[in-house]
Amino acid sequence: MKRMLMGLVMCASWLVVVAALLLAIAPAYAQTDPLPSWNDGPAKQAIVAFVKTTTDQGSPQFVPPAERIATFDQDGTLWVEHPMYAQVMYCLDRVPAVVKTKPELAKVEPFKTVLSGNRAAIAKLKMPDLMKILAATLTGMSVADFTADVKRWLAEVKDPRWKRPYTDLTYLPMQEVLKYLRANGYKTYIVTGGGQDFVRVYAEQVYGIPPEQVVGSVGATKYGYDTAGKPFLIKEPKLLLNDDHAGKPEGIHLLIGRRPVAAFGNSIGDQQMLEYTKAGDGARLAMLVLHDDATREYAYGPAQGLPSTKVGTFPPALYAQAKQQGWVVIHMKTDWKRIFAWE
Amino acid sequence: MKRMLMGLVMCASWLVVVAALLLAIAPAYAQTDPLPSWNDGPAKQAIVAFVKTTTDQGSPQFVPPAERIATFDQDGTLWVEHPMYAQVMYCLDRVPAVVKTKPELAKVEPFKTVLSGNRAAIAKLKMPDLMKILAATLTGMSVADFTADVKRWLAEVKDPRWKRPYTDLTYLPMQEVLKYLRANGYKTYIVTGGGQDFVRVYAEQVYGIPPEQVVGSVGATKYGYDTAGKPFLIKEPKLLLNDDHAGKPEGIHLLIGRRPVAAFGNSIGDQQMLEYTKAGDGARLAMLVLHDDATREYAYGPAQGLPSTKVGTFPPALYAQAKQQGWVVIHMKTDWKRIFAWE
Repeated sequence: MKRMLMGLVMCASWLVVVAALLLAIAPAYAQTDPLPSWNDGPAKQAIVAFVKTTTDQGSPQFVPPAERIATFDQDGTLWVEHPMYAQVMYCLDRVPAVVKTKPELAKVEPFKTVLSGNRAAIAKLKMPDLMKILAATLTGMSVADFTADVKRWLAEVKDPRWKRPYTDLTYLPMQEVLKYLRANGYKTYIVTGGGQDFVRVYAEQVYGIPPEQVVGSVGATKYGYDTAGKPFLIKEPKLLLNDDHAGKPEGIHLLIGRRPVAAFGNSIGDQQMLEYTKAGDGARLAMLVLHDDATREYAYGPAQGLPSTKVGTFPPALYAQAKQQGWVVIHMKTDWKRIFAWE
Repeated sequence: MKRMLMGLVMCASWLVVVAALLLAIAPAYAQTDPLPSWNDGPAKQAIVAFVKTTTDQGSPQFVPPAERIATFDQDGTLWVEHPMYAQVMYCLDRVPAVVKTKPELAKVEPFKTVLSGNRAAIAKLKMPDLMKILAATLTGMSVADFTADVKRWLAEVKDPRWKRPYTDLTYLPMQEVLKYLRANGYKTYIVTGGGQDFVRVYAEQVYGIPPEQVVGSVGATKYGYDTAGKPFLIKEPKLLLNDDHAGKPEGIHLLIGRRPVAAFGNSIGDQQMLEYTKAGDGARLAMLVLHDDATREYAYGPAQGLPSTKVGTFPPALYAQAKQQGWVVIHMKTDWKRIFAWE
């Protein structure tokens, strides 16, 4: 009995030693920089301060885990959108296959221009033309066939500047923000003007964001049966949700049903999502990526006095609204130490 | 040093004792019945066998955690749907308030009948009439006002038979299934023909299912600003998704983007969701609640030779399909030891 007691006492003293060691290690771990690709500055500080104040139980701005929703635009916010959205490139690449099944389209614009291969002419296509191409190339097949085709395309095609798959063109600093938020109990969502089914194909692998957390522009699907009687969903040419501008908060309500606590965007299409997020009670984080790094990525938008371009439209009024409403602007050139993981 | 070593040895022996105790306790815990309100029988056995085979790493039917999606119809599957859907009761109760703002409706059918208070006449209203009532009572207010009004209604109103709030009328055995699946890494979703915004008001509290996991019939919302410039969403009279019949797999694709591994329903409106779930590869669980307990709840459907009723339509063909395609029928009368938690 005495030996047993002595053992217990020794155990207890060892436990104290182990506990002390753990306590000594814990702060060192906590101090590991969660955002190593960010330079110190107002943007990084805003993110860290927001996470601390919303996850500290003792903070008056504590947010319960169930309400920790963070939404991210994709094009220009999580990955490169210049010179053209990846999904538009996919649609253009699909035109020959579509024309093969519908030869009458070969003589009709905008398909004629796309088939000509004349890059300058293709670059000049206007939004109504692009919408026709999107409708023709993104519908009429089953969801499963579409997924397989996008996977094939992503594996084959490389972007023109870096000669890398599009899925390599994600911004490392934003990947760190996604992971940092998730490590702190946040559910991270993509809220994109791009097609929901397109982004779902790679979002889990590329961003760690599962299909059910991708909000995007949505075409209707129609349930049916194949010749063997097996049920499947076919993609219909009917737009249910245009998940851009006012469509972003509408899409967030449809898919999530809660107002986000944090939101990240980079263009006029994100204005309403950022406003809506910021208008909630308590601590809110609204951030806008400014593309001001012509060397490492691209420069476009008000900071450079450059004209707004077709993609990533960022008028001076948006910059002014950001300043006025307390959104934090991320200056790519000065806030980001590295842009890509493979650099 | 010797004392230290002795302490270590004693510690090690104590660790062995503790480990042995833990090992002895673990199987006892594992054997605790996760479904105590279920009688032993094919239904309970099917649920337990499904969970075991899809969560055991060594099983050829193992399902990775990210793909563990289970979908549940609500009315008649998770809670009582007789004599009328709770949401229809809510809409009928809201008619006077709507007529107050639009007095011209008082003289128009079906509003005239609802205002008459003639229960027999109200019960005879047909689907197009009900749709008019739904459109008038579920739209034209902000999402926040709607949520507040449903909360008020749920707190005030009691169902006619048990004199309890509707939120008390959930089936205890199904609550156990929800918890059991979640404890095994499944994400549980409601997939209801009812209104998404209506069910979201109480789903988290009643079922432990957060707003982002409620798939329902969806009306469009419109983003706008109040007089103070604060953004809000208003409910529009435009149906985006009728989440019933073929609309259920379509809604599942829209909100979840993955095929469920398990699905639970009780009526013809769930047919396509069950087919779609069952048509996937690997282990699949499709279950159908049969209301055959006239004493403790209600009896309707083919097992009793009763005619199909307006709610919970369950034609004999559905029962036949269940038998043919290996869906498991839950017989409320014999499979459920208890129906409600408060009994």
